[in-house]
Formats: sequence, C-alpha cells, structure tokens
Amino acid sequence: MKISIERATLLRAVAQAQSVVERRNTIPILANVLIEAEGDTVTFRATDLDIEVLDKAPAVVEKPGGTTVSAVTLHEIVRKLPDGSLVTLSEEPGAGRLTVAAGRSNFNLATLPREDFPVMASSEYSSNFSAKADVLRRLFDKSKFAISTEETRYYLNGVYMHVADADGGQVLRCVATDGHRLARIDADLPSGASDMPGVIVPRKTVGELRKLLDDDDMEIAVSVSETKVRFATPDITLTSKVIDGTFPDYTRVIPQGNTRKLEVDASEFAKAVDRVATVSSERSRAVKLQLDEDRLVLSVNAPDSGAAEEELAVAYGDERLEIGFNAKYLLEIASQVDRENAVFMFNSSGDPTLMREGNDTSAVYVVMPMRV
Amino acid sequence: MKISIERATLLRAVAQAQSVVERRNTIPILANVLIEAEGDTVTFRATDLDIEVLDKAPAVVEKPGGTTVSAVTLHEIVRKLPDGSLVTLSEEPGAGRLTVAAGRSNFNLATLPREDFPVMASSEYSSNFSAKADVLRRLFDKSKFAISTEETRYYLNGVYMHVADADGGQVLRCVATDGHRLARIDADLPSGASDMPGVIVPRKTVGELRKLLDDDDMEIAVSVSETKVRFATPDITLTSKVIDGTFPDYTRVIPQGNTRKLEVDASEFAKAVDRVATVSSERSRAVKLQLDEDRLVLSVNAPDSGAAEEELAVAYGDERLEIGFNAKYLLEIASQVDRENAVFMFNSSGDPTLMREGNDTSAVYVVMPMRV
Repeated sequence: MKISIERATLLRAVAQAQSVVERRNTIPILANVLIEAEGDTVTFRATDLDIEVLDKAPAVVEKPGGTTVSAVTLHEIVRKLPDGSLVTLSEEPGAGRLTVAAGRSNFNLATLPREDFPVMASSEYSSNFSAKADVLRRLFDKSKFAISTEETRYYLNGVYMHVADADGGQVLRCVATDGHRLARIDADLPSGASDMPGVIVPRKTVGELRKLLDDDDMEIAVSVSETKVRFATPDITLTSKVIDGTFPDYTRVIPQGNTRKLEVDASEFAKAVDRVATVSSERSRAVKLQLDEDRLVLSVNAPDSGAAEEELAVAYGDERLEIGFNAKYLLEIASQVDRENAVFMFNSSGDPTLMREGNDTSAVYVVMPMRV
Repeated sequence: MKISIERATLLRAVAQAQSVVERRNTIPILANVLIEAEGDTVTFRATDLDIEVLDKAPAVVEKPGGTTVSAVTLHEIVRKLPDGSLVTLSEEPGAGRLTVAAGRSNFNLATLPREDFPVMASSEYSSNFSAKADVLRRLFDKSKFAISTEETRYYLNGVYMHVADADGGQVLRCVATDGHRLARIDADLPSGASDMPGVIVPRKTVGELRKLLDDDDMEIAVSVSETKVRFATPDITLTSKVIDGTFPDYTRVIPQGNTRKLEVDASEFAKAVDRVATVSSERSRAVKLQLDEDRLVLSVNAPDSGAAEEELAVAYGDERLEIGFNAKYLLEIASQVDRENAVFMFNSSGDPTLMREGNDTSAVYVVMPMRV
C-alpha cells in the first residue's frame, strides 16, 4: 500500500476512528484502525465490536492495499503535523511496518495484519430513510441527558428511537429515562420510516452520532433493523448494535391530568435554582418550590451549612403548592428550553411533574418530585 | 456586622481567598474566610496555616464587626449572582449565621466565631523592597516548571529566591531544580534588596503569587525574613512561610566549559520534539539528538510501537555528536524561549547541557542527558 493524502482530510478521518476505539482493551487489534486503499479512495475503519465507524477520504493511491495501525498514535502524529502537509502512508508487504512521512518527518509504526481486523457483519436493514442532521441532532441532544447510567437497568442505557402516534399522526420519537426523569422528543416522521422497528441506541453510539450532525442541512441516511442501526453521511458510516432489551412502557409515566400551570422564564429559573442549590453540598440536593399566585419561592435548607431562598415573578393562577425536586434534574430540564418560557404542569406534591417549552408538545419532560 | 459591597469587588476578593483554602482539611475553620468590616473597608482573610492571603475592598459598612464563613460556598454564591448586583452581608451578634442578600436572593450561611480564626503572627522582615509585577512574573514563571515534586527532597519543592553575583554585579535570582533539570533566572537587583536572605518560596505560594502579577506595571512590595516572605499590592497581601531547608549549591551544576554550540528556532524545535515523541507511550520518553554540520536529526525508537525521525536545519559547526534527553524536559525548556532562537551548549553525550535564549545569560537552563 502507498497513498498520499492531505493532512486535514487525514486528520478528520482518523479523529473519528480513534474516538470509537476503546482506550483500554484486551484485544490488541481493537486499538488499531484498518486502512484500506483502492482506486482514488482510502477508508479508515475502527470498532469496539459494538460500534463500527467507516470513514472514506479521497487520496492519491499509488499502490492499493491495506493494513492496521494504532489509531491513537496515528491520530496524535497527524494532529501534530503542520497544517497543509501532504502525508504519505506506505507499507512494504511483509515488513510489518507502516511509514508515515510528511516534510522532514518520518514515522515508522508497528502494524497488525488486515486479515485479523474484525469487520462488522453486514446486515439486512428492514427500514431505510433519510433525515436532516438538525432533526436528528434535536431528537438526541434533548433526550440524552436522561439516559440512565445504572448498568443493571441496561435497557435504559440508551435512547429509545421509534415510531409513535401523536396528536397530528405518526412521529419519529426519541425517549430516554433513568426512572427519575424522562425526556420525550418528537419529529416529523421521515418518509419510509413508518415500519421502522423501535431500537434502543446505546449511549456511546449517541455520542459518536453527534459528531456527524454538525452540518444542519446534511442528509443523514438512517437504516434500522431489529439488532442494528446505521447512520451515514456521504463520507462516514456509523454502524452500531442496539441494546438487546425491551424499553419500558413510558407512556404510563407521562402525566395526562396535571392542571396546575406555572410559566417561567427558563433561563432566570435555571439561574435561581443553581444559586439556591449552592448552600448544600449533598449529591442529591433538594430544592423546594413554593407556588402562590404569580409568585414562586425557591428554597434550599441544609441544616449544617445554611439556607437559601429566592423569589421569582411568574405566571401561576392556581392554588398554593409546595413541591420538591432534585436540583440537578431541575437544572438539566430547564436548560433544554431554548426558545420560549418553560411551562410546568403540576398535580400534587407527590406526583410527577411535566415540563415543556411554551405550548410545544413535541418536546416533553417529566421529573419525579422529592420529599422536602 | 452589616456591609454592602459590589458583586464584582466581592467576587475578586473572595476568589483569591478561596483558592488558598485547602479543599480537604481536618480543622473546620480553615475552610472559612474571615470577614472583618471597619471604617469604609472590608477585609477577607484565608489561610492554610502556611500561606495567608488578606484582601481589602471598599464597602459601605453600616455596622462594623467580623465573622467567618465557608470560603468555597461564599465564592460559589457570589459567582452565581447576576453581574452588577449590590450584595449585603449581615450578621446578628450571637446568631451564628451570616445573611447574604442580593436582589431577590437570600442566603443564610453557618458561621464560626472570628476569635477562633488563626491569624498568622506578624513578623519582623529584615528586607523590604519593591519590584514591578512583570519582573517578578518573569522570575517565577520561567523557573517554576523545574520545581521538584518529590516530597522527600522538600528543599527542592520551591523556587530559591536570593541575591547572587553575576557578571554585571548583584542580581535578584530565582532558581528551581528537580535534579534532572534546572532553571536560573536573573533580574536587576531592586534597591533595598541587597541584604535579603535567600528563601525557598513553596510551590503553592508561587501559584498564589502569580495571581497578583497580571498587571505589568503594578509595584509589588516584597518583604523577606529568614522564615517568611510577603508580597503585597495595594489591595492584596500574600504572606507565606518559606521552606525550612538549605537549597543545594546549584552553581556546581551549571556547566561552564561547554563549547559545542547549536542554534535552533525554538518553536520549530519544540514541535519536532513533540512529534517524534508521539511514537513512544513510555513516561520517560528519550529523544535522541544527532548533530552534524548544520543538521540536527531528532529520533525516537520504541521497539514495540514504532520509530520516528525528523530533520531540522540548524546552525551547528562543531564535530558530530549524539546525545539523548527526556522528551518532556526538552519540550518544557524549549517552551521557555519566547524571543529569540534557542542556543544549546553541549559538551559530551554524558554531560549536562546548557540552554539559553540567544546570547541572553539572564535566563539559563540546564538539562541532564539520558542514555539512548
């Protein structure tokens, strides 16, 4: 194999590959990226056996071929090369070494045979559709904070992407929950997606996917089967196993009958929660909300260290209510609101509370109260 | 006590105080800042028993008095208050609580009695002088990287500030070393400093001092005794014990007879060292320098992972030389050079090497070679 490639192109491709590679793994070749050159294209492939990323880049291929080399080392080298360099990657067959040359720099890296690299088996996908990057970004960005980190509840360790019935018809929906809070985000159903099986996209895949979604107007090709999901841009293909489990019936958790409505400036609210929470150093800090007509008092009481209280002018017309929440959960939910006021719908101090942006029901959050 | 103070003024004063406070300590009051109000001034005092910082700020003092309160909590609260707030601090005598109020926010913090706060004993200073902030900044910034972290060699855990004889007469000198490398930085001797005793300024004090030195033209009042050192701006006084030990005779370590001179662009050199070091993951990576007429080849050989080589055009007129160094030490030393080319003076591959900026001998570095 011998190729020449621009440093910036190489860096982008290798950066994506090395982020999939697990830093600690017992199988040496999983630390490597598989480089394959053919025609006028070079591909970079990395996997942790659950996720595979395949990156295509244009290159001058003098001699086709392939090899594998440490993804992290190659990435570090390319990152440190001067911008604008032309990089040559070459391997003498049987030498077991890849030479990386650029300007007056010369690197010689240990390789492992390309034949030993575990390429993910290709799948039959039962559903294929296309979605804009900004649509997918919203679905996952607004739901991922609620993903559970409890390994025993493995079926909650991801975002449940599925087709659901909403008021206006079918929607593409992402849901995540850890039992304490829940996010349910809807988007228009892309054509061709209606028979998609529901899949739980693992947390790490959600993180890797995010890197493909920076360009608002990019069309992302999505393929889904019972066991795998694939997201592809023209250059990058991200394939991932989905979590083998059943996502719980979340619809029962979303309160339908909450009638006490509080409307509040989301940013002011988040800042006030953050401030009053300062006096407590406990991990699960409870913030008490006292609601009265057009008045919200936030308070925290930590007997050892102190107490805090803050008043906000709000829109609230119902009867007096006192309810407590985990400060971190309230902050995270409030920070999802980016356009309008946050609207909270309460029932009683013991019931789950619903939050949404203005009257928009395409993004709905539920948070469980705490006793205060 | 009752005072009103601008949020920005309070934040600056409390930020300095809370950074001295140790996060983990067994004496509760050491987590607190002592606040004392009198006249039209409020002072904030924090200590870890080795360093004390005292910060003065203008305030409207309605009722003089004093108390102590958690430095970290107070800092967090003030940081989160809206910019431009007027903050009121008040304490009812005997209540054991400090009230922090700003706008519609109200905090109530646990206090400890001001009488229990360990105020550092005042000292007789045998030497008092004044130095510009940028002079002190250069002395400490360029030497601190060489401070040893080995606790057993406690007398190397700081910067040795003393008066020394140089070619042009007496200088104010800072030296730090960890036995592998050494930095020796000189500045013109400020008037009144000539009889200053040499003191070892501890690492943490060097870090805290740095925050006083951002304003180039600020005059810093320096006071030195055998056991303490004090740096003061009009608002902030930093007092520190010095390390009770004898700094070794560093002059013997600085090679006088090195004649082989290499001149190289410091930034190009640092980048090349950084690149070739990439192939080795060992903690003490050795870089080999091969010097030939007007040519420097940097190389690293890590049998398991690979090898790297890079050539630089340099000014070198002496006979062929091969010498190895710890990559990290070379990088740190090269990154001290900010104006001119780096000039290395070698003897043999087994002898310490000297580095300076151009022909400037007011900043000199020594680094021990490694066998490669």
